[in-house]
Amino acid sequence: MRNLTLLTDLYQLTMGQGYFTEGKSEQLAAFDVFFRPNKLITYSVAAGLEQAAEYLEDLHFEDEDIAYLRSLGIFREDYLAYLKKLRFTGDVTAVREGEIVFPYEPILTVKAPMIEAQLVETALLTFVNHQTLIASKAAKICAAAGGGVMEFGLRRAQGPDAGIYGARAAIIGGCVGTSNVYAGKLFQVPVSGTMAHSWVMNFPTELEAFRAYAKNFPEGCLLLVDTYDTLKSGVPNAIKVFQELREAGFEPKGIRLDSGDLAYLSKEARKMLDEAGFEKAIICASGDLDENSVRSLKAQGARIDSWGIGTKLITSADMPALGGVYKLAAVFENGVQIPKIKLSNTTEKITNPGLKDVYRIYDGKSGMAIADYITREGEKIDREKPLTIFHPLDVWKKKTLRGFTLRNLRSPLVEKGKRVRESLPLFEIHKYFESEYARFWEEYTRLDMPHIYKVDLSDELHALKKQMVNSFGKGEA
Amino acid sequence: MRNLTLLTDLYQLTMGQGYFTEGKSEQLAAFDVFFRPNKLITYSVAAGLEQAAEYLEDLHFEDEDIAYLRSLGIFREDYLAYLKKLRFTGDVTAVREGEIVFPYEPILTVKAPMIEAQLVETALLTFVNHQTLIASKAAKICAAAGGGVMEFGLRRAQGPDAGIYGARAAIIGGCVGTSNVYAGKLFQVPVSGTMAHSWVMNFPTELEAFRAYAKNFPEGCLLLVDTYDTLKSGVPNAIKVFQELREAGFEPKGIRLDSGDLAYLSKEARKMLDEAGFEKAIICASGDLDENSVRSLKAQGARIDSWGIGTKLITSADMPALGGVYKLAAVFENGVQIPKIKLSNTTEKITNPGLKDVYRIYDGKSGMAIADYITREGEKIDREKPLTIFHPLDVWKKKTLRGFTLRNLRSPLVEKGKRVRESLPLFEIHKYFESEYARFWEEYTRLDMPHIYKVDLSDELHALKKQMVNSFGKGEA
Repeated sequence: MRNLTLLTDLYQLTMGQGYFTEGKSEQLAAFDVFFRPNKLITYSVAAGLEQAAEYLEDLHFEDEDIAYLRSLGIFREDYLAYLKKLRFTGDVTAVREGEIVFPYEPILTVKAPMIEAQLVETALLTFVNHQTLIASKAAKICAAAGGGVMEFGLRRAQGPDAGIYGARAAIIGGCVGTSNVYAGKLFQVPVSGTMAHSWVMNFPTELEAFRAYAKNFPEGCLLLVDTYDTLKSGVPNAIKVFQELREAGFEPKGIRLDSGDLAYLSKEARKMLDEAGFEKAIICASGDLDENSVRSLKAQGARIDSWGIGTKLITSADMPALGGVYKLAAVFENGVQIPKIKLSNTTEKITNPGLKDVYRIYDGKSGMAIADYITREGEKIDREKPLTIFHPLDVWKKKTLRGFTLRNLRSPLVEKGKRVRESLPLFEIHKYFESEYARFWEEYTRLDMPHIYKVDLSDELHALKKQMVNSFGKGEA
Repeated sequence: MRNLTLLTDLYQLTMGQGYFTEGKSEQLAAFDVFFRPNKLITYSVAAGLEQAAEYLEDLHFEDEDIAYLRSLGIFREDYLAYLKKLRFTGDVTAVREGEIVFPYEPILTVKAPMIEAQLVETALLTFVNHQTLIASKAAKICAAAGGGVMEFGLRRAQGPDAGIYGARAAIIGGCVGTSNVYAGKLFQVPVSGTMAHSWVMNFPTELEAFRAYAKNFPEGCLLLVDTYDTLKSGVPNAIKVFQELREAGFEPKGIRLDSGDLAYLSKEARKMLDEAGFEKAIICASGDLDENSVRSLKAQGARIDSWGIGTKLITSADMPALGGVYKLAAVFENGVQIPKIKLSNTTEKITNPGLKDVYRIYDGKSGMAIADYITREGEKIDREKPLTIFHPLDVWKKKTLRGFTLRNLRSPLVEKGKRVRESLPLFEIHKYFESEYARFWEEYTRLDMPHIYKVDLSDELHALKKQMVNSFGKGEA
């Protein structure tokens, strides 16, 4: 494992020295990670918390890191000695991986001595922003495809980690496998892939190329049929080899289309395969696809069973950054919480102060999610009484709920620097996402003009926020 | 160093087994890496070759990798034994890092036994696609800013490597530093950063926060002035602290603006600083910037000396993947080159066959770049004779050159599996880019509607391509 302790912005370390010399190094602070609304985000799938926890547990400066920091000529020796001994000793409360989350909700909260809490900001954001982004994109694509999506993007990923952890996030979001062998081994998830155009080009004829491949991989044989002419050459040659395979006692897996009019070609190929008696041979499609092209192909009646999605998934091409932030929510003096707020001229940018809990409210009868509800930490909600929730910005939008169930979305991830949550297999994380997704009305998750799912503030939290905003007057703290 | 040997697509390994059992494992093949035109690419800055060379030198399967591959149940034992001994033994010819490159030009060519050449495709593309993308984006942003750009994007990067190697590429493209401490140490480049809003919020008043910071960092003191009210509170408080610093014998570095109307605020802040006698204090701006917003701010007369660029640089937000490809150019039988071509219904997608050289032609008088010129490998160009170049697709576009100089853009990077090119400090790579950039007329590099720089084929290469396309007739190989 690489030591990623230096994976931080320099200002975390300069501020750290400031807190150190100001005697504030042991002052506890709480920071929330959350993201803001964006028209491309209808819902997000939390991911990257596993790597966040690993990173926090491993946090330590090596001698060479200290030597490097010393070489910058801006740090004091006593502070460097302090850093050498520093470990992460704080607590982290977070949602599960695979949890469906919405803007403004604290996905995770770090409560730690100020220097530690600042130091870990950058890397935590990197892990959570990246993986949540890709898991969410994968979820959209998989919803459009209705299943059978494989992650094929490594060569277009923004570096090795983007490919490796992008594949991880894609599985959480619903992909059934990846082409990335490194990720397959690391996360024990299915890997897939058979041949490239270069294989076909490297034999005198397409038929010989297919035969040579089938000889090597008689089981699960999947042939790439678009190197020369999909319908005149590729599919007929594939059928010839499939017949030979069947005679030898093997059932072929199917074909892959990687170019051309995928709707037309898949329908024609389906007919040809069916007529030849290969009704069970699948048709896999790839080539610059995303949730929109997948949906369009399905609307056109394309007969595609399986999808290889590359560039647009692994980079989340239409929105390549989630933009999650890490904001001070509170400091503690003599054990007493002092809520903090970040003001802004833009109402949506004003933070929610203090330690908080996040609940999901489900309808008592249908079991479907109605709204999320952010409260002050430890606030009691009386389920016997009707609960009036209101829009955090447009407070005239109200709704009174009766007969609901509640779930606290967050639980401890790290306590006193040690992780306290077990690591789950990726497919289990995905299954969790799926079970939760089923509790959302389609109106909230659909791609086009979804209803905005409500994330409301409790009366108590809203009152605190209002009071803090008002007391700052024109923004002077 | 992580062993990235498994950082490949599964089909490279299945094809490998195919070549192994077909007795083609020792057959030499040559593959080119190049990218296709895209309206956002006027020119690109090659990067990632250093990591490509490191990866090739280190290529080897560990026992646990072999055990993992065995567990997939699709590989033969004799092939796994072959893989266990496999090292990269081939040659790689490539452009320098920092070289300006254009669509269709083979940035690098791998010549190696087929199995090795396929195995390394994915990772080579990952390194070169990612870093070339970010170096090119950085070059655009730095050209718009005219210098003083710092890379600030780690928290929004697509995983740790995207931040680390993205920072590397950003320096090659022209950034003067990064906020990323890990990258600063690894690549020995300047790191920068002073304070976040949380620092200011964590003191009773802004003035106290600034004072505490200045006490800790009297040298190079740069204060973030937009936490509460930039002009009414931030700048006046900064000036107060700057005066105290000056009395103590220190010159302040300047201020940073991270929100609001950066054009207006920077002009007003400049006046206030100048009036207070801090003409040399710089104004740094940050906050969701890219080449377009930088250019717009400069056109509005913003007084910004230094730029912190995050998300849109580190993800190349408007085009988050370069889309470079790796295509078979030739195979060798008994030492004889057999050129290979990939056909397509789309003319631009037809590859250039065979081994090739890439030259840049400079005007003999001005020394400025006129065109790039792709030839068959080893083709002689007689500089005494006029050279007629023509557009590779629109062949009626011709130009006859006299009195030019030539430069072969490529040289050996790896020979027989060992790298033969020395590793250069990043700023030297950047300096090389800059010196080459100066040899391009602005018409080719400007952001808006640039002239398309010519990349032409030699008569010989063009004749070969034409002949191969024609002989394939309707595309049957």
